[in-house]
Amino acid sequence: MTRQIGPSPQELQRALSDAAAWVASYLQQVGDRPVLARISPGDIAASLPESPPEHGESLDDILTDIDRLILPGITHWNHPAFFAYFGISGSGPGIVGELISAALNVNAMLWRTSPAATELEQRTLQWVAEMLGLPTDWFGEITDTASASSLYALAAAREAAGLDIREHGMAGRDDLPPLALYTSTQAHSSIDKAAIALGIGRRWTRHIETDDAFRMRPDRLEQAVTSDLAAGVKPVAVVATVGTTSSTSIDPVPAIADICERYQVWLHVDAAYGGAAALVPSHRDVLAGCERADSFVTNPHKWLLTPIDCSLLYTRRPDDLKRAFSLVAEYLRTDEQDVVNFMDYGLSLGRRFRALKLWMVIRAYGRAGLASIIGGHMREAHWLAEQIDAASDWERLASVPFSTVCFRHLPADARDPDAHNAALIDAVNASGQAFLSHTKLNDRYAIRVAIGNQATTHVHVARVWELLQTAAEQSE
Amino acid sequence: MTRQIGPSPQELQRALSDAAAWVASYLQQVGDRPVLARISPGDIAASLPESPPEHGESLDDILTDIDRLILPGITHWNHPAFFAYFGISGSGPGIVGELISAALNVNAMLWRTSPAATELEQRTLQWVAEMLGLPTDWFGEITDTASASSLYALAAAREAAGLDIREHGMAGRDDLPPLALYTSTQAHSSIDKAAIALGIGRRWTRHIETDDAFRMRPDRLEQAVTSDLAAGVKPVAVVATVGTTSSTSIDPVPAIADICERYQVWLHVDAAYGGAAALVPSHRDVLAGCERADSFVTNPHKWLLTPIDCSLLYTRRPDDLKRAFSLVAEYLRTDEQDVVNFMDYGLSLGRRFRALKLWMVIRAYGRAGLASIIGGHMREAHWLAEQIDAASDWERLASVPFSTVCFRHLPADARDPDAHNAALIDAVNASGQAFLSHTKLNDRYAIRVAIGNQATTHVHVARVWELLQTAAEQSE
Repeated sequence: MTRQIGPSPQELQRALSDAAAWVASYLQQVGDRPVLARISPGDIAASLPESPPEHGESLDDILTDIDRLILPGITHWNHPAFFAYFGISGSGPGIVGELISAALNVNAMLWRTSPAATELEQRTLQWVAEMLGLPTDWFGEITDTASASSLYALAAAREAAGLDIREHGMAGRDDLPPLALYTSTQAHSSIDKAAIALGIGRRWTRHIETDDAFRMRPDRLEQAVTSDLAAGVKPVAVVATVGTTSSTSIDPVPAIADICERYQVWLHVDAAYGGAAALVPSHRDVLAGCERADSFVTNPHKWLLTPIDCSLLYTRRPDDLKRAFSLVAEYLRTDEQDVVNFMDYGLSLGRRFRALKLWMVIRAYGRAGLASIIGGHMREAHWLAEQIDAASDWERLASVPFSTVCFRHLPADARDPDAHNAALIDAVNASGQAFLSHTKLNDRYAIRVAIGNQATTHVHVARVWELLQTAAEQSE
Repeated sequence: MTRQIGPSPQELQRALSDAAAWVASYLQQVGDRPVLARISPGDIAASLPESPPEHGESLDDILTDIDRLILPGITHWNHPAFFAYFGISGSGPGIVGELISAALNVNAMLWRTSPAATELEQRTLQWVAEMLGLPTDWFGEITDTASASSLYALAAAREAAGLDIREHGMAGRDDLPPLALYTSTQAHSSIDKAAIALGIGRRWTRHIETDDAFRMRPDRLEQAVTSDLAAGVKPVAVVATVGTTSSTSIDPVPAIADICERYQVWLHVDAAYGGAAALVPSHRDVLAGCERADSFVTNPHKWLLTPIDCSLLYTRRPDDLKRAFSLVAEYLRTDEQDVVNFMDYGLSLGRRFRALKLWMVIRAYGRAGLASIIGGHMREAHWLAEQIDAASDWERLASVPFSTVCFRHLPADARDPDAHNAALIDAVNASGQAFLSHTKLNDRYAIRVAIGNQATTHVHVARVWELLQTAAEQSE
């Protein structure tokens, strides 16, 4: 008897249904699991056969193995007490969207290869722009991550500098001055990585000093730009951040935009994390000045309830973006006029139908629902900040513009505060009841509580504060 | 009464279940739909509100709108008569994998942020290497697309050239010669885009002439390299292709590897499409010589039944890849030793759990099942090639190393063969029963039938041949 190849339609139907039930149940119970995976390096690998199976297995068996082999090695980003990094909060509607995208499996490279994917992408990006108070006539596209979005934006900036790098490259040219990129000391590593990839280099990536609230100092930026100009170095772009990764500080975008206009330098704004806050009416001004940017990135997979990956790149200069990247091979030529073929605006030809999940999230929550959840996270963060400020022996290390709080325990007799606070984090993480990560601010080790999961409530925030206090007491 | 924010657990459970049933039904019926979307530019956008909803809507309503608003604008890549571009065949097990990945929503940037995602990625890539007959000790990682994989590989090659571009960049340096990249005239546009992004430039991207079977000519490659070396240009990398996009030709990798070794140039192999064929025992030799590559890319989302996106980048020089990209911010430092943190090997910090769907596909089909499906596609392509060869007035324009056939109708009285064949494609596409795209080979317009969907059977291939013959007759 020959075995059927792959699952039958009936087996697949049952597996889809079982997996859907599994997901619903997982989401309801994830709060009871330890947040950080409790395994050692190599444990998962050791449980997996070294060679692939020769013959197919039943989907039933494979689904069973998700619980048996995979879940023990999962750090639960869905846990409402996941407070590390930035919570990349997914949501049920986003998961349903991903399921349907995976089933449709279209490639939104050309309009004709999936008109609905292209036009829904255009429309949902217009919706997000409207919700955030950004110009709705900006060109927008979805990429996988802010790393790609910023790389594309900075490649466009490099091309817009008029040096025809697309054609002539950068090496061995005696007509090319060094090119410099400006961002703050607090910028995300993706900006530095883009500068490496684009041949700008670490050396010419100017990390501008920040003020005591970790915001780029415009005076220092202008000094750096004028000093470079005087030395024959060409400024290519300035990257301002709305919501830096360590402290979530907000660079003074209006003043930075003034400088960019004065010296005609491309302004890119990295609002990967912070952008979503502008949905909340009281926080609209976090994006003040961003309407003057040449390009702008925000990530719905961070704080807009959309499963990873979904990063939005906006630009008011789509022609520069297209000039940087467009290459149309014969086999991709189509007859349609007046359509956007998204492959022309970036590196990737293959493009998932990511707009669908974003559309489902926006519709399922509505602007008001999203604002309410994000506003709730910010209220919880302020509550936590108040507790820290009121507690003796605890010190807050940064202001709280969004929903992330940086602080440390600093008892009078503290000998090595960095090691002490690292130990507190380890104790909390070992409890399984919350997951925290750290950063350093002014060379001080900081505990960092980032609130962003849609299921997080006051109970979880109060609990992590209690866990930290208990750990601090026990360490004495 | 305040409306609940977002769906209740019950509503979500029902929606997941409904969506799962929708997917099963869609996959069973997709063959009855017109392959190419029958709408005009702007139709979908016009059916979508210009502004986002203020309040959330029920998931029921949104799911209904998938049928009403989205499906009419979908070009059905799942249709068994989708023969355009390369069919990026998904499969049921892959869809289930995507559903669970979306629900887990982990970010596989660090080992600790999802040990299972990291270790499953390592293990599944080892499985694929074994199945394709590649070295199983290569370092492997998953990226979204071959565009990213090749960009990473070529960035590593650039860094490995010993010019410390990471630190000093490429502009304004008098110690830097022009850097050249070599690939064939038939290479994929992603290679050209990577050369643009990396500052190599169009001018220094050498498109080496191919032979009469569209394979890179090693003699011409060596001439180009030696002539560049004599002129003080530094060769950075050679990109060979196994399965070019137009004709699916296979560059002579062993001879190219000889040249790369002789002149110490990084060899990258783009087997995004063709790599999967090596699963079939009779086709193992399509990857001959690839074990000598410095880096290698193949895309399970093309021909290995995995939903988009899933591209595999292998390298035997992971240290060069890491040297090109690694930047560890304080907030990402972890204590674990001897683990791979995949964020160190590329641009993207955010990384979806893509290994899960690949693992489910490999387990559900087994090596033998996958080989049987891919082998079947190649047999169908050869059957079609035989029909074309036997038919008067039809001309095959390339050999068929894989499952893609390029040909044209050339009646004795043909006046404008290009326009005539374009009209034949339009007629077939308008029927809704198949979707074809074209290419140009030696300046001749070619109809291109790419067979790659897991549901494609002989009936579909025979039918497209019949449709083409009918269209040709009717045009006389």
